[in-house]
Amino acid sequence: MIIRAEPLTREAFAVFGDVLETGGREATLINHGLTRKFATLSLVQVDPGAVAQLCIYRSDPVGLPFHLREFERHPLAGQVFMPLHTRPFPVVVAAGQDVPDPENIRAFITDGRQGVSLRPGVWHHHQLSLVQKSDYLVIERDSEDGNLETCRLEDEVVLQL
Amino acid sequence: MIIRAEPLTREAFAVFGDVLETGGREATLINHGLTRKFATLSLVQVDPGAVAQLCIYRSDPVGLPFHLREFERHPLAGQVFMPLHTRPFPVVVAAGQDVPDPENIRAFITDGRQGVSLRPGVWHHHQLSLVQKSDYLVIERDSEDGNLETCRLEDEVVLQL
Repeated sequence: MIIRAEPLTREAFAVFGDVLETGGREATLINHGLTRKFATLSLVQVDPGAVAQLCIYRSDPVGLPFHLREFERHPLAGQVFMPLHTRPFPVVVAAGQDVPDPENIRAFITDGRQGVSLRPGVWHHHQLSLVQKSDYLVIERDSEDGNLETCRLEDEVVLQL
Repeated sequence: MIIRAEPLTREAFAVFGDVLETGGREATLINHGLTRKFATLSLVQVDPGAVAQLCIYRSDPVGLPFHLREFERHPLAGQVFMPLHTRPFPVVVAAGQDVPDPENIRAFITDGRQGVSLRPGVWHHHQLSLVQKSDYLVIERDSEDGNLETCRLEDEVVLQL
């Protein structure tokens, strides 16, 4: 099965999470007129009583086509990936309750500026970079206790642009 | 009074917050060896029951020397500024309980990659950019109710590199 990456848009991504971008959004002027604030692009979602932490992920690139072998999800918290670079990267997600549904795998390619905020419990492939080693600011639950489920795909699934 | 910006280091900034950077930190290998994870650079700090939101701030540049006229603080939450660019920017903070202490204003200049996570209640100048319009990913409390105090400086204070 071949999954082709489609452009990342807020509409197409809405069931999986929020797109962190300024395009098409209203801003308010703050800081005595020096700053345009694009507010509430997403919320930091962790279960009550838990804490969200900030990480930097530094990811080696993969080549395409890339074999998608395993998905994961975090039932107790969302996860945010904001690129600290300006290169498009793929975001691979899947519908499905107990396991990712291979018929409903979707891949999105960012425009080089966009980040994503995944909803809690959304099946996704681990973060991928193309072309070169790349950094991301990541916001996630401070503890993985009970917050990580993984599932290997039985079918052969390949990501392609 | 002239405040000169000093290099931003974790040690010098520790009383005000955390520096978001990878230099000198240990990473763990995740994602089947593809990703180096620099974990727990800081925590998202909001008062219990409140939610943190993600914004993008787009700030016009200011010239130096720059007159520092007003400080602000957020007693109920920390605030995170992560540059979505690679230009140094100043971070201006002050010790002080009820008001910022003009004798204890400190200014730091980032190395172009570093971000900062301010602790709740730390007096700081609003976010400043140099040279050109610049974007920042900002994490802050979703509501400003009871979370914003401002204080004008009585003395003439000027920021300089």
